[in-house]
Amino acid sequence: MAALRPWRVRARKVLLSVRPWLEVAREELVLPDGRMIDDYYRVDLPDYAVVVALLPDQRVIAERRYKHGSRAVTLGLPAGYLEAGEDPLCAARRELREETGFTSTRWRSLGAFVVDGNRNCGTAHFFLATDCVRASEPDGQDLEETRVELVGFAEMSAILRSGAPLEICTATAIGLVHLEIRARG
Amino acid sequence: MAALRPWRVRARKVLLSVRPWLEVAREELVLPDGRMIDDYYRVDLPDYAVVVALLPDQRVIAERRYKHGSRAVTLGLPAGYLEAGEDPLCAARRELREETGFTSTRWRSLGAFVVDGNRNCGTAHFFLATDCVRASEPDGQDLEETRVELVGFAEMSAILRSGAPLEICTATAIGLVHLEIRARG
Repeated sequence: MAALRPWRVRARKVLLSVRPWLEVAREELVLPDGRMIDDYYRVDLPDYAVVVALLPDQRVIAERRYKHGSRAVTLGLPAGYLEAGEDPLCAARRELREETGFTSTRWRSLGAFVVDGNRNCGTAHFFLATDCVRASEPDGQDLEETRVELVGFAEMSAILRSGAPLEICTATAIGLVHLEIRARG
Repeated sequence: MAALRPWRVRARKVLLSVRPWLEVAREELVLPDGRMIDDYYRVDLPDYAVVVALLPDQRVIAERRYKHGSRAVTLGLPAGYLEAGEDPLCAARRELREETGFTSTRWRSLGAFVVDGNRNCGTAHFFLATDCVRASEPDGQDLEETRVELVGFAEMSAILRSGAPLEICTATAIGLVHLEIRARG
């Protein structure tokens, strides 16, 4: 069977650039079968890290806050953009500490995934931190007023299935922990 | 405890509009504590539907194709944008049929999630279709050359944990099926 071939970028024009937050480009593409596409849009957003942080009793360190992208108060997880040149795990540790005051010495990657297969929208890096302990107060530097909530893992999973407004990274992260549990038995 | 309050949009300027594909706006915001934010960006992308489609033997109907947002050949699931006014379940049924030629009479929602809590980037709607049967050939209308692959559910889960390049919606969808299995026993 013939290999699946990449598309070729024939020309590219940046339409909007407000780095590090956002860059939008229009690309002219040549498809493998020779078709030309004049206007395929790419949206670059910063990569981010998301943490499922568990206490020794397996409760999840969650955050309730108003998210302006969702236009709703949602229950989420510690998460944030990678700083320039920052390693994803370092960003995850930093965000957990800054947003919740908790730390852990036990970290495991749950994978990294491109946010949008058509537009890009950055890559999300997922981590599991276990046996978390409180080391300080949250630093309260985010734009959002954040309320840290400790939620049982089963309850967090039930919330995912309840239709409550949630962001996709929360659903992905909790789902990946279920996979991890299943794989490790 | 005081309620978490939404942010107020004081002014809004559309910077780029290429509907239905993409619209970017810059908003001036007033936070609940009175702080002003002059440049918060919103990215509207179309809502989309994603399907975990299972055969009677529980294999997943997957698709291997080059995804230009990911700049890679990835293994994914039937998925696509909702057409104007289209119900998410109708979009899911349509995409499954168009992209793979399979249909099902057994559908269940796995939830809907905002793609980006800061920027928006649309809402992803997840569905599980069981006992799928082949009804036709794929219609081959997508830009991508697509190879339909039937992948065991356990293998699909292992691929998620393997570090292979995948889009977030694939990880979310398979994770949500694990939650569903766990919840239903």
